[in-house]
Amino acid sequence: MNSQSLSYVHDSEHGLAVPVTEVALENSPGNRPNEPFRVYRTAGPGSDPVVGLPPLRQPWIDGRDDVEQYQGRERNLFDDGKSAVRRGRASQEWKGVQPIPLRSRDRKIVTQMHYARHGVITEEMRFVALRENCDVELVRSEVAAGRAIIPNNINHPESEPMIIGKAFLVKINANIGNSAVTSSIAEEVSKMQWATQWGADTVMDLSTGDDIHTTREWLIRNSPVPIGTVPIYQALEKVNGEANDLTWEIFRDTVIEQCEQGVDYMTIHAGVLLRYVPLTAERVTGIVSRGGSIMAGWCLAHHQENFLYTHFDELCEIFARYDVAFSLGDGLRPGSIADANDAAQFAELDTLAELTKRAWAYDVQVMVEGPGHIPFHLVRENVERQQELCHGAPFYTLGPLVTDIAPGYDHITSAIGATEIARYGTAMLCYVTPKEHLGLPNRDDVKTGVITYKIAAHAADLAKGHPGAGERDDALSKARFEFRWRDQFALSLDPETAEQFHDETLPAEPAKTAHFCSMCGPKFCSMRISQDIRDQFGGAAAQEAIAGMAGKSAEFRASGGKVYLPEPALPQT
Amino acid sequence: MNSQSLSYVHDSEHGLAVPVTEVALENSPGNRPNEPFRVYRTAGPGSDPVVGLPPLRQPWIDGRDDVEQYQGRERNLFDDGKSAVRRGRASQEWKGVQPIPLRSRDRKIVTQMHYARHGVITEEMRFVALRENCDVELVRSEVAAGRAIIPNNINHPESEPMIIGKAFLVKINANIGNSAVTSSIAEEVSKMQWATQWGADTVMDLSTGDDIHTTREWLIRNSPVPIGTVPIYQALEKVNGEANDLTWEIFRDTVIEQCEQGVDYMTIHAGVLLRYVPLTAERVTGIVSRGGSIMAGWCLAHHQENFLYTHFDELCEIFARYDVAFSLGDGLRPGSIADANDAAQFAELDTLAELTKRAWAYDVQVMVEGPGHIPFHLVRENVERQQELCHGAPFYTLGPLVTDIAPGYDHITSAIGATEIARYGTAMLCYVTPKEHLGLPNRDDVKTGVITYKIAAHAADLAKGHPGAGERDDALSKARFEFRWRDQFALSLDPETAEQFHDETLPAEPAKTAHFCSMCGPKFCSMRISQDIRDQFGGAAAQEAIAGMAGKSAEFRASGGKVYLPEPALPQT
Repeated sequence: MNSQSLSYVHDSEHGLAVPVTEVALENSPGNRPNEPFRVYRTAGPGSDPVVGLPPLRQPWIDGRDDVEQYQGRERNLFDDGKSAVRRGRASQEWKGVQPIPLRSRDRKIVTQMHYARHGVITEEMRFVALRENCDVELVRSEVAAGRAIIPNNINHPESEPMIIGKAFLVKINANIGNSAVTSSIAEEVSKMQWATQWGADTVMDLSTGDDIHTTREWLIRNSPVPIGTVPIYQALEKVNGEANDLTWEIFRDTVIEQCEQGVDYMTIHAGVLLRYVPLTAERVTGIVSRGGSIMAGWCLAHHQENFLYTHFDELCEIFARYDVAFSLGDGLRPGSIADANDAAQFAELDTLAELTKRAWAYDVQVMVEGPGHIPFHLVRENVERQQELCHGAPFYTLGPLVTDIAPGYDHITSAIGATEIARYGTAMLCYVTPKEHLGLPNRDDVKTGVITYKIAAHAADLAKGHPGAGERDDALSKARFEFRWRDQFALSLDPETAEQFHDETLPAEPAKTAHFCSMCGPKFCSMRISQDIRDQFGGAAAQEAIAGMAGKSAEFRASGGKVYLPEPALPQT
Repeated sequence: MNSQSLSYVHDSEHGLAVPVTEVALENSPGNRPNEPFRVYRTAGPGSDPVVGLPPLRQPWIDGRDDVEQYQGRERNLFDDGKSAVRRGRASQEWKGVQPIPLRSRDRKIVTQMHYARHGVITEEMRFVALRENCDVELVRSEVAAGRAIIPNNINHPESEPMIIGKAFLVKINANIGNSAVTSSIAEEVSKMQWATQWGADTVMDLSTGDDIHTTREWLIRNSPVPIGTVPIYQALEKVNGEANDLTWEIFRDTVIEQCEQGVDYMTIHAGVLLRYVPLTAERVTGIVSRGGSIMAGWCLAHHQENFLYTHFDELCEIFARYDVAFSLGDGLRPGSIADANDAAQFAELDTLAELTKRAWAYDVQVMVEGPGHIPFHLVRENVERQQELCHGAPFYTLGPLVTDIAPGYDHITSAIGATEIARYGTAMLCYVTPKEHLGLPNRDDVKTGVITYKIAAHAADLAKGHPGAGERDDALSKARFEFRWRDQFALSLDPETAEQFHDETLPAEPAKTAHFCSMCGPKFCSMRISQDIRDQFGGAAAQEAIAGMAGKSAEFRASGGKVYLPEPALPQT
């Protein structure tokens, strides 16, 4: 859509510029001009995949003077799997700038939460405030309280700061990643760019196939949004898929590898405790979380407590040095309506609450993951319980799906639950694509998942009465009412699809400026009658008429609501 | 799917057989057989379009001995529009059986509500009870109280009785119909059959183009579900699209025409009162209901009260003789988030409540239509207000859409609102297709709309705790857990799409019996670990272990929730 362009909102005092998408609008009838409309933008400035993005945040990170470059882990082909070892390189090595890893100096804590708690307002916080159109003190105080996070690894300076917390716009995450059965590096980079183009606020790389390290390198160097991972997936690859062979040491090394690359948040399934595992035995669908079942399998095989739990403090110490945020995984989330809100799920949540406080003791940022499959009437309890137990730490949920009977449409079954859970305070929604339960999402599925989740997130923003959330609805509806078809397309979440659907019925170019639609056709038009009514009763006349009518109406009801045939009480035309 | 077949549930005492779809299931592991699963079926027995369906209900209607055949209106080519008059016939005349119209004898009332109020249990009520798997007395009492309707025109004996009311399964309607710019009769019949195949409980024919009468004849003779219409659309065609030229006489004649054909329910915009029209003047999107704007335009042009309101009692007398149900149209429904729950909308609802009582005085069945575009947090108020004002008369809503910003995805924006409104008691949901606001739905759009609304209706049934609603979820999830892929497809709302999506990633035939999915691949599988857990802890062992673990867990929390590294407390394997 050539009416959409990249623009910036400036904070010239602090030298900040936040990218926004600007939509140029046509004039309203009577040649009344419409201001361009600005939309929150996740696509970043755009990059050539082989070059990567410029390190926007580097001066801010350096300016705080609390980090040091160091020689990180060696390049280890094993990080990319056996095929890479065999062939002596990854299938497509990263050739762009390879930043030297940073970590905090003298074991300092360099998290946004740490700064916030010490009353420091960072450039990241100012950027976020500009982006959210809110006071920066709100950003600082919510981060300090743990009610919001700004996931920003110091080794991912390319990212544009964004915030996840219930006081802010509801965010969405898109999962991508290769698997044992499909995908190339280029395809994953393209999926990431595609997802952020349509509005993904963060992207999780859930790769489980070959070239995990190198795929992630390409992704991070090109990503304007925070990148999340589930490090146990890569750790499992390093032990040939044998969960029993996992060790804390292999896991720890994988975490360091990812911290040095710049992963912004990591899902850690530290709440799957040995004693909770039997609680899943009688479930309809057992343990459906991949990470959850890996850890459950390990616990059982070793008859030992989950090493992510027993080493949790060490993880906190590591994360604090890079500003990696925890996403505390819900490994025991229900995988079916029948298993919703059960003992296993809520037992794990108790532990996630405990872990939240432990992370906060290190000033490490935390969000908590949530389900899953939950019938609609039980959704609300999930977020309210999580918010209470976890002292307001941001909730990050997958859906939830409100029924199991629609494989192929689980973006929809889950968007229903997602709207409900976000309405009551969930801060970020993990998208579900139409391929959920069936296969791996392709490009179209990624787009469908993202748009569907933008709908859920925006509907929740409206329901929460988030400041300014309704402005885009109003602008689009005004365009619709005035038959500004092109503006209606341009203001929509998916202009291409909207225009294409319109053209299927009325393909001719003039139909895009026509004052009718395909429902009624040119002869009769609802909207036109409404225009007539407005012409007749709009403005001052309307106020008078409305007052008069309201009086009549009240009178009518007062009289007992009997059949009433008024003399025409309307102003003559 | 060859595992799905037509079967019947019998009430042999009363000689009734209700069609259901039976899904044959494979054995569970260990060769444990699974009972076939029965699904509520809307597709009927199937018909050859040129022949039509057998008149299932004819003996029941005749058996009550309160109707008479009579010479109805003459075949009037004008009913099919100017093109038909010019060519001397409709573009494709109905050649199947042309039933002689029935009406009540001696101006008797022959509505299901009338029978119900007199304690009579009809075959229609028994059929419904069998279909809903509930007591027939529940059916009778809800119909008698006006809280449910069985829309069954005596001139549509082909239909299979179904019930719309909050005590029963949530129903969905699919709109079809030609327009000034598209469609053929065959296409509309095919859309109707397609919609009922995927689960539409009723179909509304909203044709506004040529051959309106004949298209409807084809539809009714072939429809196993109730057919609804908006007669003002056809009336408007009869006056060349000039709303100002409409008269009560033309409208009345159109209603009789449709009563004689067998239309089961009609949308009547009798709540658009003259004095309410100015209340819409300051709206963002004015009046968006086509029927609403027709009547508003007429009221303004004539400075007279809406003739549907002033002649409402005559309509009741007519409907009572054919058992046509009112669907009281919400002509002033909001067309944008900004206009939701406003004075115009709620003023009209007050009038719909008044009209509900007036119709009930004639024992005429009534449902009340609802919006529209409503932000998520205001949805609930709509149904609760309607239920209170209208004394529990069934609510029938279009969506509502919870945001305006996603044209092309309004099946989703509206399914979110639909689930919420149905959860709190809306009895029937009018589907929205992806083409809403943009163009006319094709076959794919109809299917997408129907499946999406089946999701919303079913999610609401689950949320309401409707008896047995969760059985299909459980059956599907069990199949999923046991890697019975074919059963998972067959039990889903759209088996074809589910199978196709699965095959995109893992196309080979063996993958349909494989004990893994494309997410994890063959090397590692979450579900398999869960099976191991079940094998280890299932049954009696699980109970013991769970009890032990729960004790430990409570102990742990009691001890202050400090880090706790238990000795392995699990039974040895």
